[in-house]
Amino acid sequence: MDAAQEAHNREAFRQAVVNTLERRLFYIPSFKIYRGVAGLYDYGPPGCAVKSNVLAFWRQHFVLEENMLEVDCPCVTPEIVLKASGHVDKFTDLMVKDEKTGTCYRADHLLKDYCKDKLEKDPNLSAEKAAELRHVLAVLDDLSAEELGAKIKGYGITAPDTKNSLSDPYPFNLMFQTSIGPSGLSPGYMRPETAQGIFVNFKDLYYYNGNKLPFAAAQIGQAFRNEISPRQGLLRVREFTLAEIEHFVDPDDKSHPKFSEVASLEFLMFPREDQVSGQAARRIPIGEAVTQGIVNNETLGYFIGRVYLFLTELGIDKDRLRFRQHLANEMAHYAADCWDAEIECSYGWIECVGIADRSAYDLHAHTDKSGVPLVAHEKYPEPREVEKLVIAPVKKELGLAFKGNQRMVVEALEAMGEEEAMEMKATLETKGEAEFRVCTLDKVVTIKSNMVSISKEKKKEHQRVFTPSVIEPSFGIGRIIYCLYEHSFYTRPSKDGDEQLNVFRFPPLVAPIKCTVFPLVQNQQYEEVARNIARALTTVGISYKIDITGTSIGKRYARTDELGVPFAITVDSTSSVTVRERDSKQQIRVNVDEVASVVKEVTDGVSTWADVLWRYPTHSS
Amino acid sequence: MDAAQEAHNREAFRQAVVNTLERRLFYIPSFKIYRGVAGLYDYGPPGCAVKSNVLAFWRQHFVLEENMLEVDCPCVTPEIVLKASGHVDKFTDLMVKDEKTGTCYRADHLLKDYCKDKLEKDPNLSAEKAAELRHVLAVLDDLSAEELGAKIKGYGITAPDTKNSLSDPYPFNLMFQTSIGPSGLSPGYMRPETAQGIFVNFKDLYYYNGNKLPFAAAQIGQAFRNEISPRQGLLRVREFTLAEIEHFVDPDDKSHPKFSEVASLEFLMFPREDQVSGQAARRIPIGEAVTQGIVNNETLGYFIGRVYLFLTELGIDKDRLRFRQHLANEMAHYAADCWDAEIECSYGWIECVGIADRSAYDLHAHTDKSGVPLVAHEKYPEPREVEKLVIAPVKKELGLAFKGNQRMVVEALEAMGEEEAMEMKATLETKGEAEFRVCTLDKVVTIKSNMVSISKEKKKEHQRVFTPSVIEPSFGIGRIIYCLYEHSFYTRPSKDGDEQLNVFRFPPLVAPIKCTVFPLVQNQQYEEVARNIARALTTVGISYKIDITGTSIGKRYARTDELGVPFAITVDSTSSVTVRERDSKQQIRVNVDEVASVVKEVTDGVSTWADVLWRYPTHSS
Repeated sequence: MDAAQEAHNREAFRQAVVNTLERRLFYIPSFKIYRGVAGLYDYGPPGCAVKSNVLAFWRQHFVLEENMLEVDCPCVTPEIVLKASGHVDKFTDLMVKDEKTGTCYRADHLLKDYCKDKLEKDPNLSAEKAAELRHVLAVLDDLSAEELGAKIKGYGITAPDTKNSLSDPYPFNLMFQTSIGPSGLSPGYMRPETAQGIFVNFKDLYYYNGNKLPFAAAQIGQAFRNEISPRQGLLRVREFTLAEIEHFVDPDDKSHPKFSEVASLEFLMFPREDQVSGQAARRIPIGEAVTQGIVNNETLGYFIGRVYLFLTELGIDKDRLRFRQHLANEMAHYAADCWDAEIECSYGWIECVGIADRSAYDLHAHTDKSGVPLVAHEKYPEPREVEKLVIAPVKKELGLAFKGNQRMVVEALEAMGEEEAMEMKATLETKGEAEFRVCTLDKVVTIKSNMVSISKEKKKEHQRVFTPSVIEPSFGIGRIIYCLYEHSFYTRPSKDGDEQLNVFRFPPLVAPIKCTVFPLVQNQQYEEVARNIARALTTVGISYKIDITGTSIGKRYARTDELGVPFAITVDSTSSVTVRERDSKQQIRVNVDEVASVVKEVTDGVSTWADVLWRYPTHSS
Repeated sequence: MDAAQEAHNREAFRQAVVNTLERRLFYIPSFKIYRGVAGLYDYGPPGCAVKSNVLAFWRQHFVLEENMLEVDCPCVTPEIVLKASGHVDKFTDLMVKDEKTGTCYRADHLLKDYCKDKLEKDPNLSAEKAAELRHVLAVLDDLSAEELGAKIKGYGITAPDTKNSLSDPYPFNLMFQTSIGPSGLSPGYMRPETAQGIFVNFKDLYYYNGNKLPFAAAQIGQAFRNEISPRQGLLRVREFTLAEIEHFVDPDDKSHPKFSEVASLEFLMFPREDQVSGQAARRIPIGEAVTQGIVNNETLGYFIGRVYLFLTELGIDKDRLRFRQHLANEMAHYAADCWDAEIECSYGWIECVGIADRSAYDLHAHTDKSGVPLVAHEKYPEPREVEKLVIAPVKKELGLAFKGNQRMVVEALEAMGEEEAMEMKATLETKGEAEFRVCTLDKVVTIKSNMVSISKEKKKEHQRVFTPSVIEPSFGIGRIIYCLYEHSFYTRPSKDGDEQLNVFRFPPLVAPIKCTVFPLVQNQQYEEVARNIARALTTVGISYKIDITGTSIGKRYARTDELGVPFAITVDSTSSVTVRERDSKQQIRVNVDEVASVVKEVTDGVSTWADVLWRYPTHSS
């Protein structure tokens, strides 16, 4: 099958899934009666149930299992917090404007589309030109505004809708801005992630945890991203649910007590080196990946393993799930290591969970901005004597010598490392002055011995004070759910073979409704039994749908297979009923009084369908 | 006890509750390290757990029990939706500004404070003046901007902080405004309620429900209100969680099939007439309230009953819960009836749930604005013959006669009721012309017989098309939780009687952590047993806290009583352990292997503590 055919099949498959999802209200384009808003979607009833099942399982699998501290912070966030985190300055995409209509486009999208289009559709493309375009695609994410602008101009790219010329690219901040209170003087933003709410609470959470490390905090909530021009349907939206974990750990000890529980798990990993050398992702036991240093540390490895278990238990196909390590140029300068759980769907490999060792960056940033030290303490069993470097600039002398540049010189002196400082001390003592390079001034100045005193002092320390490292697994819940829809969808012929029926093979854990109740025929007795069963299901907490229409039983099955309902109870007598499993279509006979608890058993995973199949008589329709 | 003493006690009680809540991180002022933002709070770990328990129970009690259609819509909302709903024009508070500093205040708050202060503290107040001030307080909510301004000027009220003079009151819109997309041309708001997301989806939801009424849709989510100057701590915040139900029903039939299940419930109700005549709230069975017409209809009554059950099962004291009917001046003009579930706390009676019959207002508003008919259909068993009034303006003639005013005349003609139209028809037939008042032009015009044709036509109708009524129970989750904290809090002396210990008597349903595990002494064997029990608790889905510090068992109990943990497991042997109930402090001995399932039993409400107390040997410490 050639690439075009494959793309066509992917597109057709996606259409089938998306049509079913929209028709059955798994999701609805928001504000549809007003023609909608790009990048905003509602979860309709079954979608909402799937989402709440996924979140409940997330809480069970992560928060409860690891005794994490869950918090719930507001979406509205004052500017200073996002200034400290870097979002006000750096959470941007490069944008170009149609010079006549003012329509906005993402600059990289236009360039990407141009290159892909040329490569796919231009038969006269020279080998040289093709190589150039492929190179552009490879480095697309690294291009500066100037470089992007030059390429757009160079290739003569115009506005897609009007063919008008385009402005130079400029950064557009992706946060929704607002104003807090009535004065108009307190700018705020809708949070772009939930993590900052946890970081600013570090001190209280550390105290709550008995001043002990490691511990993790978690948050589920809405996050916002004012996309320039949303594409890719449910994957790139302007408002979405994030579930984030911030695991705080001693930077000198990133071991994890439960690592052995996941060490033997083996799944597709795609280390940085393999990507660079053009190899494919390969199955590596996570224990080995940590031992070999492919994954930076045990805690990061532990979470990678836990994420694997989480996603596959939801129903993500393990063969279309890989953990891809960030390349050097993708990773923030402060990060120690970073892996994305990527799920393959009709749009390609999609980043759904990011698992990053962000080192001490975030706590440092908020310590600096707020002046509140976000640090941990480790008491020594007994006090230790330590030698400490003390650099004391003499501000008066420095002021006289350097005037307006004084501050930069002071800061540079204070920032010296031990070796450099001791060298200067020696030079000052022998020569009375020393040459000193001040980076922020970009020049070399002369420091005299009366301008700074450098010494080493002995001190008794009772505890170690340090900024914890943060290991952050961050889950895009909407993306996970969309990929789950694609991985769960299949079609099969109807009984007569005259049409294809849609099925979602959701595990009971995820299924929006666990069970249906159908009276076989419209009849008061059967309806009475159906209602009693419904009441029993509610009591044991199993969501159900009752269908007392006279529609044929086959049609009723087809309708609910399309919602991924795993079990159907058909009332065909007043003493016992038929229970049918969705994928195998196998049926068993169960007493009316027992049926709610049997369905609960298989739904909660206490028993498998195979177990109950063995316990109850089968039924052939 | 006089009023001042009572106020003082209330204040002291509130301080005790709030101190405990803050110290144990039930909540945290948001962005505290940056000095916080008024009206924004985080839920810390125990608060977050309480919230998620309350929401889970809400889903069970309402959504699952009634088979409601749950949806999940974005917070970011385009202007047109909130224009239709009336929020853009009317969701305002009146504000005054300090004329020098620009500080903003709510106009009604300043007037209210002034009146209360005078009444409480001015010994020289004349009886006449006192009566006037009391009248102002009574009509406060009804005052227009002009009236409020006149009172503020008249009483010489100045800015509380600076004593500067104040601006005239003017409306401030309480929605957080933002801009959707990069163009700056699409204004949007953070939703002030979740209900609109449901209304705009009515058509799809009705279809999803098999085009049948009644049905209810529900939504849990964040809502936003940019308060001018938030007061009352956790009760008046800028971002909060709402849980809303929109029950769509035939306006001609508001009976409810399950009404009999709640009819005999009896609780404090405060009908409009009793408020006006100065009586107190009284216990009325809800069935009687509906029969007597105090409550407008069965469906409204059903939800009032269900709300009562919901709140009391959470632990709200039934003697400090009342249902207060809106006075005529409080109710929107379109509403058929409206009741608030009010809970008494240290701030007074607080509206926590609103239960309103909003008639067809919302669906009408969105039908008008969007042009998409949000209606229901009822097929007649057989077609009916109906006479229909047909008014056909002749636009050409009207255009010649009225030029630019043509549209207004056409609309006025089309809007005529049957009686008026038939009268005009008769006049036109006899006199050839008729006088006609056009409201929108504010004048009377002459209509000639060639300008409009009026007739009655017989038509066969196959179905009734109508706009459903909406009955809306709307829950302020944060307010309910805060009142629950106050109702659950008590103190009791420590064992030695030397200090008062705080306890939250949360039912297991609500408790943030269901159980603690304490090894009696620090010892490897006991810790091993504790960890095994912890693992068993995780497996059965019971949240726990393990405390292996050497702190005295009494202190450990006190710590967790303050978190409202209902059960404590103390490991004091390797074969059996002690289980203690929080409020009675009674203890039983249970085998290690059984203890997780026993705690699950009492936590899930399958058994009561009295049941297990009878089954297992008691233990005296």
